[in-house]
Amino acid sequence: MKQPFRKIINDPVYGFITFDDPLIYEIISHPWYQRLRRIHQLALAHLVYPGAVHSRLHHSMGAYHLMCNALQELKSKGTPISAEEEQAAKIAILLHDIGHGPFSHTLEHVIIENMRHEEISLLIMEALNKVFDQRLTLAIQIFKGAYPKAFLHQLISSQLDVDRMDYLSRDSFYSGVSEGVIGYDRILKMMVVHNNELAIEEKGVYSIEKFLVARRLMYWQAYLHKTVLAGEHMLIKILERAKLLARNSSGPFSVSPILDDILRSADSASYIRTHLDHYCMLDDYDILSSIKAWCRHPDKVLSTLSTWLINRRILKIRLQVQPINHSEKEALLQKTMQAMGLSSEEASYFVFDGIAVNRMYNPGDEHIRILFKDGTVKDISSIEYLLVHNEVENPAKKCFLCFPDTVKS
Amino acid sequence: MKQPFRKIINDPVYGFITFDDPLIYEIISHPWYQRLRRIHQLALAHLVYPGAVHSRLHHSMGAYHLMCNALQELKSKGTPISAEEEQAAKIAILLHDIGHGPFSHTLEHVIIENMRHEEISLLIMEALNKVFDQRLTLAIQIFKGAYPKAFLHQLISSQLDVDRMDYLSRDSFYSGVSEGVIGYDRILKMMVVHNNELAIEEKGVYSIEKFLVARRLMYWQAYLHKTVLAGEHMLIKILERAKLLARNSSGPFSVSPILDDILRSADSASYIRTHLDHYCMLDDYDILSSIKAWCRHPDKVLSTLSTWLINRRILKIRLQVQPINHSEKEALLQKTMQAMGLSSEEASYFVFDGIAVNRMYNPGDEHIRILFKDGTVKDISSIEYLLVHNEVENPAKKCFLCFPDTVKS
Amino acid sequence: MKQPFRKIINDPVYGFITFDDPLIYEIISHPWYQRLRRIHQLALAHLVYPGAVHSRLHHSMGAYHLMCNALQELKSKGTPISAEEEQAAKIAILLHDIGHGPFSHTLEHVIIENMRHEEISLLIMEALNKVFDQRLTLAIQIFKGAYPKAFLHQLISSQLDVDRMDYLSRDSFYSGVSEGVIGYDRILKMMVVHNNELAIEEKGVYSIEKFLVARRLMYWQAYLHKTVLAGEHMLIKILERAKLLARNSSGPFSVSPILDDILRSADSASYIRTHLDHYCMLDDYDILSSIKAWCRHPDKVLSTLSTWLINRRILKIRLQVQPINHSEKEALLQKTMQAMGLSSEEASYFVFDGIAVNRMYNPGDEHIRILFKDGTVKDISSIEYLLVHNEVENPAKKCFLCFPDTVKS
Amino acid sequence: MKQPFRKIINDPVYGFITFDDPLIYEIISHPWYQRLRRIHQLALAHLVYPGAVHSRLHHSMGAYHLMCNALQELKSKGTPISAEEEQAAKIAILLHDIGHGPFSHTLEHVIIENMRHEEISLLIMEALNKVFDQRLTLAIQIFKGAYPKAFLHQLISSQLDVDRMDYLSRDSFYSGVSEGVIGYDRILKMMVVHNNELAIEEKGVYSIEKFLVARRLMYWQAYLHKTVLAGEHMLIKILERAKLLARNSSGPFSVSPILDDILRSADSASYIRTHLDHYCMLDDYDILSSIKAWCRHPDKVLSTLSTWLINRRILKIRLQVQPINHSEKEALLQKTMQAMGLSSEEASYFVFDGIAVNRMYNPGDEHIRILFKDGTVKDISSIEYLLVHNEVENPAKKCFLCFPDTVKS
Repeated sequence: MKQPFRKIINDPVYGFITFDDPLIYEIISHPWYQRLRRIHQLALAHLVYPGAVHSRLHHSMGAYHLMCNALQELKSKGTPISAEEEQAAKIAILLHDIGHGPFSHTLEHVIIENMRHEEISLLIMEALNKVFDQRLTLAIQIFKGAYPKAFLHQLISSQLDVDRMDYLSRDSFYSGVSEGVIGYDRILKMMVVHNNELAIEEKGVYSIEKFLVARRLMYWQAYLHKTVLAGEHMLIKILERAKLLARNSSGPFSVSPILDDILRSADSASYIRTHLDHYCMLDDYDILSSIKAWCRHPDKVLSTLSTWLINRRILKIRLQVQPINHSEKEALLQKTMQAMGLSSEEASYFVFDGIAVNRMYNPGDEHIRILFKDGTVKDISSIEYLLVHNEVENPAKKCFLCFPDTVKS
Repeated sequence: MKQPFRKIINDPVYGFITFDDPLIYEIISHPWYQRLRRIHQLALAHLVYPGAVHSRLHHSMGAYHLMCNALQELKSKGTPISAEEEQAAKIAILLHDIGHGPFSHTLEHVIIENMRHEEISLLIMEALNKVFDQRLTLAIQIFKGAYPKAFLHQLISSQLDVDRMDYLSRDSFYSGVSEGVIGYDRILKMMVVHNNELAIEEKGVYSIEKFLVARRLMYWQAYLHKTVLAGEHMLIKILERAKLLARNSSGPFSVSPILDDILRSADSASYIRTHLDHYCMLDDYDILSSIKAWCRHPDKVLSTLSTWLINRRILKIRLQVQPINHSEKEALLQKTMQAMGLSSEEASYFVFDGIAVNRMYNPGDEHIRILFKDGTVKDISSIEYLLVHNEVENPAKKCFLCFPDTVKS
Repeated sequence: MKQPFRKIINDPVYGFITFDDPLIYEIISHPWYQRLRRIHQLALAHLVYPGAVHSRLHHSMGAYHLMCNALQELKSKGTPISAEEEQAAKIAILLHDIGHGPFSHTLEHVIIENMRHEEISLLIMEALNKVFDQRLTLAIQIFKGAYPKAFLHQLISSQLDVDRMDYLSRDSFYSGVSEGVIGYDRILKMMVVHNNELAIEEKGVYSIEKFLVARRLMYWQAYLHKTVLAGEHMLIKILERAKLLARNSSGPFSVSPILDDILRSADSASYIRTHLDHYCMLDDYDILSSIKAWCRHPDKVLSTLSTWLINRRILKIRLQVQPINHSEKEALLQKTMQAMGLSSEEASYFVFDGIAVNRMYNPGDEHIRILFKDGTVKDISSIEYLLVHNEVENPAKKCFLCFPDTVKS
Repeated sequence: MKQPFRKIINDPVYGFITFDDPLIYEIISHPWYQRLRRIHQLALAHLVYPGAVHSRLHHSMGAYHLMCNALQELKSKGTPISAEEEQAAKIAILLHDIGHGPFSHTLEHVIIENMRHEEISLLIMEALNKVFDQRLTLAIQIFKGAYPKAFLHQLISSQLDVDRMDYLSRDSFYSGVSEGVIGYDRILKMMVVHNNELAIEEKGVYSIEKFLVARRLMYWQAYLHKTVLAGEHMLIKILERAKLLARNSSGPFSVSPILDDILRSADSASYIRTHLDHYCMLDDYDILSSIKAWCRHPDKVLSTLSTWLINRRILKIRLQVQPINHSEKEALLQKTMQAMGLSSEEASYFVFDGIAVNRMYNPGDEHIRILFKDGTVKDISSIEYLLVHNEVENPAKKCFLCFPDTVKS
């Protein structure tokens, strides 16, 4: 008896992830997918949480696993889902983040200036569709939200999608921020499809509330942790400086010819469109190895920031509810110019401010729908007895100010 | 009231790791220690277990945490340990692996040919001792086994040290190989000091048995997993090839001038002695970024192996109890030469064999001592009713044979 | 060398619980403490969550463990706590619930009508104080809140005490309601003492927010789960009926002469004062075995409810935000009288309503204090950017209505 | 759209257990099944491990969950299993332990002298088969091993059945003996059917080795822990004494008329056959409540043992590899007679010896079969490189001797 195709992969979060579709296994074996292995899921969060070194590849496999379970649950509740739709939804979730560049969100608008990672994901899916004989067409439709069964798209991209469910579970697992743990399996069991849209049975509302609170906490505690913010802004400043210097020089600038091309490209989006295969070779290793090399660069801003980041000498940061005082920032800039012998423009790489935003629920986005026993459907934020009800008006914001540890604020 | 110094770090394995000694915090803030952040604990095990991407930095902090607990237990049982000894033991465990180079064990004798990582660790500790005003002297003594209280050294380096306890716990946690889980906290609670030597109370014998079995299992299931073996041997072959080519060329060879120097150095050990600061800038990023660059190298062996490894196209491998059949290997070599158009010497980078050894317990090494209620002490392997009793004679060995997936065995 | 006294107990929630004080070990070995082994922590929650069968003994040991850790943390931050105070605080938390009767909260005001379990705990502590040569005096002072270092009492009894921290952790662990998990170890690490009062460092606010949300969720999902509510109210009704019948009869009524005495006592509080040793022999086994015997009792109400509860045939229950409609309840009563051949008074044991209250935070109670870096202290509910800020006004309430499954609502 | 039948139950070990077959839900709702809620899975192990208070009901639901997963895996590997077979296998595992009496194994041959619990399980299944219109017929065939597809029976009862997998997982989870954890999900994924028999793929051998070692450890550490042994033998002695006294008296003896009948029955097996419904009302509560009552019994042996057990004053016990010295035991008997004023016959309830046996693998029982890639099948104990290979000859035995803490050994 010939055994059906089946590969299992250990996952400390879910136990095992099963791949039983040869096409899907071919896709994850493709070099462009394997590249995700070399992109950190959480950029520099490991500077604070040393365990948070998991990769985008692992996250997308995890989201795929949750997608498998979600589809299984929905089918067991009587929602018709064909084998083609199932395959397509699984492919779409596996590839949903394939467009991410090095250090994903952190450098998203720094390296590639005018194109969102979702658009790049779509470009790559379309390129892969050619490689795989148009067998990804339905997956692409679902990914774009162009397929009539809206719930399939909502599982991939909404305020309660398997993407968020996996990243919260995985990020809290690997970072050790236990408060971020969510009851993903209970949420999956509460999912239903109503009028082709994803909804949650009423008795699951507290699990959703818990999910939204856990997400809010993970933002403050991990993604927007002040040292992580400072470290990731150092990374941004380094790349901004590198871009400036690269454009004013010729010859190899970073350790990667492709990175050089992109840094020097006037229109990075069109570069990607024409050199997608090049983009698909770029990962965290190109950036970090370049930064290691830049520690010895003659430009003082670039070499200092690079050395500090490599040695985990992170800028000081103040995170507060109140707006940053302009004159305080000015004073820090002056002190930095003096202490480090920098021009005002150079010092702005070391002293800068910004805003961190943490939104629990956005009623303007794709809703979270609650299905009541009597058949009515409500947006979760309209249910008066839930905590989210009072929190929809304004996203929480905090202001931050960074400066070198060599100057006193 | 001034609060005592204290930093806590989340660790998903143990919850929290506390640093309450300013000297120790300065040590872990040193760039040489921070370098461990960029060395994978398990080299390429993540090719099979995508979660196993944790760093040497995290492992050494974990071992430090277990050391803190072990010392606390021993003191609570009446063993006198001074504050200086405690600090020194903690420093010694934090730095025990600091000598590891890129991809640690895998490349240990490839990049640096004639020096073990423990010796390099010692060199680095001695250099740090100067930086930190000779405050590491006692730690170095303990690390070398030159301090009379032998149990302090045994906690760092023996068949039941906190190093092993952490790596088993951490590797099984991150890989998701749940069978590798050990009862580290129970083992710590069973530790006693007897005649200045570390021993385990009799009632803890089954926890030790379990520990030895879990370690054995982790070797077969993770460290010596056949795909991991194949991947890591590809990495070795790449570096061997790179070394050969680098020595026969001039100009930049890899992305890192330091790596070039070491590859070209006739006596890498003496290079390290004279350029310790250079060595301490080398990490996995230099290697992997170089391999990415080598994908475009004119040497067919180097570029092919590099491309395959980056794309996770791993050599086929057969792992078996029986010795490898020589003529079978020869036939594979011939086929490879033909299929890939290679010389015999070149093909030997693609077709090779070796032996994987997994030793449960080595009665010739530092013993695991069991303390009985009547005060007698026995080596664990001499206790007849334990499983290890029958397993000490011969280490388990398996033979392996690697070859390209383009040829049939 | 004589080893210090030390007993360790496995706990799946925390790993190990250590007892290293002979007096404390004597206390937990006392029959009155051992009785807690036979009282379910969560009464009948196991009807819905089969794993939730843990005992009050286990909970109080867990709270003791957290107390040990909390005191250790506070001392390491410089708060002076003497060995006597430490011992006393540990004893107080071990005994904080020793006054609980069978099925604890559920039957609290049914079996013993006019005395709260905290008062009985105090009676028992005072009796034990005689047994243990007045060595519990300080513990009693702390328990009563009569000791100047208020934080010791607050650790035992406040809105953020180790009691709540243990029961949330333990109840969520044993029930499998993963959303109830809290970050108890992070909360402990954020504790400080300020002006002799317990406070939380500002950077811990989100962990507290998470704690309050988790507690809220555990109330709705577990403690006030509708089937648990119905089952526990059946238990109450059974005991109310038994009391009525016992008082109108003579001879053995239940399987326990002591239970008979208490059921028939006109003033149960004074009974306890004079027969404390009898009370301390009562546990869940007396109640449940009696209910098993009452399945064959001639009184139809008693035997029916008893049989149904033993066989897990739970009354139907509706739980809703809206008040219960009076005429609907009346109709159900009528139907029940007819269907079961009962009088109106008898039917009221099967058809009844009530209110379930779930309060996230009560600013009128012992506050949760947040200590800011500038030294100011605020009540957590006054911090505008926290969720609890909008939730302090009104406790959440739901109304319920129970009725037999033999009648239709 | 009508939703399919589905009930989910939280389980901290596996997350959720799903019941989606109305017949199965009816079976678990039956009072005879609900009785398992009142039988401890591990009798008195909670005297040492306070968390080990889980019920037989929970265990059998857990085994059912593993059965669901096992069948799913086998079907996905191409083994044909019909819906009827699937339902029957699930029913059989749910009911496999339904014959267990109070305190299950501990009192198995004390209360019911001449009938094993498996036989009683069969009797009950046959009685339930009538209740459920013969819909359990196939389940009974499978349970008895009378169905041609042997693997279905082997999943229920063999050396690698879902019963063992659940009890190891659950017992280690609830007791906190983390070393007992097994990789149940990996084992399930390695299962195949070969010639209608259950087998394990070769690459799973180390998971099986680990399973056998974990089971061995759980025996020594939990099931045969010396204090548990002593406590459970006290329970046996109490019941033996009660039986003797009951037979020499009339009128109510215990709190349960049914227990009285059984204690006084000359042929308990035939009593069960004729009064199965009575037997199905007996549980731990009858025994423990009776013991509580017997604390005041005039017979000194019965009241002393009962009081000691209730108060957790456990007999002293010595557990050793060497046989018990007869004259030492005699001396202890004499001392006990004197110290407690007992006859020789009475003292034998306090001083006794016995043997504890822990067998890792029994090659005489239903084998564990390993399926190699070349299609050959071997018994696991015949694979030379596994630990079990050297351990099959002799089961491990330890001798124990119990005596009161009032006498010195």
